[in-house]
Amino acid sequence: MSGTTPLRVALLGCGVVGTQVALGILANPIDLAARVGAPIELAGIFVRTLDAERDPAIPRDLLTTDAESLIDDADVVVEVMGGIEPARTLILRALARGAAVVTANKALLAQGGPELFEAADAAGADLLYEAAVAGAIPIVRPIRESLAGDHVRRILGIVNGTTNFVLDKMATEGLDLDQAVKQAQEFGFAEADPTADVEGYDAAAKAAILASLAFHTRVALSDVAREGISAVTAEDVEWARTTGHVIKLLAVAEVLGPVDDGEISVRVHPALVPDTHPLATVRGAFNAVFVEAEGAGPLMFYGQGAGGRPTASAVLGDVVSVARRRLTGGKGLRESKDQRFPVLPPAAAVTRFQVRLAIADRPGVLAQVATVVADHGVSIDTVRQTSSHREDSSGTATLAITTHAAREASLTAAVDAVAGLEPVHEIISVLRVEGA
Amino acid sequence: MSGTTPLRVALLGCGVVGTQVALGILANPIDLAARVGAPIELAGIFVRTLDAERDPAIPRDLLTTDAESLIDDADVVVEVMGGIEPARTLILRALARGAAVVTANKALLAQGGPELFEAADAAGADLLYEAAVAGAIPIVRPIRESLAGDHVRRILGIVNGTTNFVLDKMATEGLDLDQAVKQAQEFGFAEADPTADVEGYDAAAKAAILASLAFHTRVALSDVAREGISAVTAEDVEWARTTGHVIKLLAVAEVLGPVDDGEISVRVHPALVPDTHPLATVRGAFNAVFVEAEGAGPLMFYGQGAGGRPTASAVLGDVVSVARRRLTGGKGLRESKDQRFPVLPPAAAVTRFQVRLAIADRPGVLAQVATVVADHGVSIDTVRQTSSHREDSSGTATLAITTHAAREASLTAAVDAVAGLEPVHEIISVLRVEGA
Repeated sequence: MSGTTPLRVALLGCGVVGTQVALGILANPIDLAARVGAPIELAGIFVRTLDAERDPAIPRDLLTTDAESLIDDADVVVEVMGGIEPARTLILRALARGAAVVTANKALLAQGGPELFEAADAAGADLLYEAAVAGAIPIVRPIRESLAGDHVRRILGIVNGTTNFVLDKMATEGLDLDQAVKQAQEFGFAEADPTADVEGYDAAAKAAILASLAFHTRVALSDVAREGISAVTAEDVEWARTTGHVIKLLAVAEVLGPVDDGEISVRVHPALVPDTHPLATVRGAFNAVFVEAEGAGPLMFYGQGAGGRPTASAVLGDVVSVARRRLTGGKGLRESKDQRFPVLPPAAAVTRFQVRLAIADRPGVLAQVATVVADHGVSIDTVRQTSSHREDSSGTATLAITTHAAREASLTAAVDAVAGLEPVHEIISVLRVEGA
Repeated sequence: MSGTTPLRVALLGCGVVGTQVALGILANPIDLAARVGAPIELAGIFVRTLDAERDPAIPRDLLTTDAESLIDDADVVVEVMGGIEPARTLILRALARGAAVVTANKALLAQGGPELFEAADAAGADLLYEAAVAGAIPIVRPIRESLAGDHVRRILGIVNGTTNFVLDKMATEGLDLDQAVKQAQEFGFAEADPTADVEGYDAAAKAAILASLAFHTRVALSDVAREGISAVTAEDVEWARTTGHVIKLLAVAEVLGPVDDGEISVRVHPALVPDTHPLATVRGAFNAVFVEAEGAGPLMFYGQGAGGRPTASAVLGDVVSVARRRLTGGKGLRESKDQRFPVLPPAAAVTRFQVRLAIADRPGVLAQVATVVADHGVSIDTVRQTSSHREDSSGTATLAITTHAAREASLTAAVDAVAGLEPVHEIISVLRVEGA
């Protein structure tokens, strides 16, 4: 059951996360050994260059530029380099040699997950990735193991801390998008080039991983419909507030139709979330994943989605799990090879929408717009008309239409038709409504 | 890796949870087999009497009153009977025969956990209990596995749905305790005799389990300081609201001193929680567990803490895990045999307090009270005096003193001394403040 032969861990990468993983292993040898049942030894750290500036607590003699030798001598390989290559090749090498692999690499998993999971399966090796989605928050293990006897119906995730920080700043301080992004950069929450966050690419990678996991279906990054927050205005955020909503960038993965025989929709987009929904309370750069399962009902997992120490915590949890299994034999739950659910194209997704229009402020326009919307098979839930109260009688009113659940294709056609009406001056915004 | 010999599951108990576990196994054979790698067969259901009223979907021929024969022929034994005996004896029998055991029995684990875990260890058998704490919420597995490479500093849990429902009703509808308990009974959230919930016994059992898990230390039910909500008045709840707090019954488990070499305090009591804390948003009968870990930072797990289907979801997740391990060999993380941390006696616990007093409404009383509090080594954070504005000059004022963190013994002595002062008419309430 336990032994004294140390389990050798090879660490690939020594950036923000890698440094904390290394320090976590070096600082807690007794705790880790107690959890695993054998000593854990940090065999070495692969770095691209030896002379970069590093935390002085990282022993220099552990650094190596020879990844292959390091991997070939390891029981557990931890990949925290990020990027596609050489991470992919090194992970495949580790798996082929039968080493267990722990990775935090969401981009690689979203793009090349099937290849990696097949390699792990062929080698009978573990491949864990708790840190790849929502940082410190245990979400991969709960979905994969705790809900293994249940059916997930829907996941709504705030999985990108940068955009949540930005939207929260817009909501609480009335900033516009550019100002809020600048603040996020000053706080270190956003990169100099914030595109991957702001345009939803990062969230889309996590959506693909979560959907694959929850629905036992291989969902590729290209299956994920993606819309970032760059079109969200201060006015949208303020309008949302006055109607009892907050705007959040959500990763959505859901089954349409029977929970065991439907189709799945996977998408990332800004959405209106009611104030009363647990996700609405997620502030700043925090992440949260809301899961609706048939048996369990609603669940939410909340915490820090990024940062060196939080991410390292998730990585170390996986290291203990795989080391433990390596020592005692046995395998974790395998990635499913089912292709249970067909993935719907974006236009087939079904959501509620809120469409805001600037219209001529005169009688009859509301009825005209409502008729066109209904003609496209979209059912209206509520309509709210706000007059601009301008002095001149040819003023503009704002019309906010909230629909019942509608297919995206129908809604798009309805909006196009509405935009063509003479008294409609402008489509101000089209936002989905989730969690209502 | 997979086989066609079915894994035989013996179910002990066919109440609300047992029925849903049985239906979950019977209804999803293909899904479960895919997760496990072999078919799962419900071998039988132990019931005390065959002729009780039951869900018609439960096949009568699966019922048996012979628990021993059922257990002796099973690979996995699921105990959802509740109570201490015969659950304890049957679980020990199952473990002794090498069967894996899944239980939802918090009372038994809190009282007899060490005996059960030793038996599991001796037999090399798995003993899982995700459903025993916070129902459907994955919390046992995340603490045990995901945080295995981290250090938990504090757990604050809303782990009893009945009392959360009651306190929420008091806060939102201004009900007094008795009215709110009656409503909880009408909604089916409280038993006819609500003592176990209202007086915190149920929460204390869960606190002992969570503390044992988080701190790798055997915490017995008798180590848990317990105070229920029966002394909480409608006025306390209203006062909390006006000061930006809600009152929640919390299970608290925390390390005082160094995170790897301190002492632990485990307790259940009503507490003032700031409105801005994630736990403050937990409404109705929902549960949530807030965890502060050194690396991961703050985490929260939210969901339904009771009910047949939610609890069955957690049980089935454990069944898949143990069945999977049984098939592929290997063991899960064992319960730690460390006795890492000494458990502090209740009087040594350190918290912030809010003490409300009715005092004579005349100058100098505040200073007199503050002096006595300080003399007992308790440091005051804020004082709030509210005059009753009565017509007569000998009126009463309310004094609310919020302290900095203080040892419970010091606070109790300070309150006793304050109560003895001539101008102090009454100690209205003493509440702890958590999450601030």
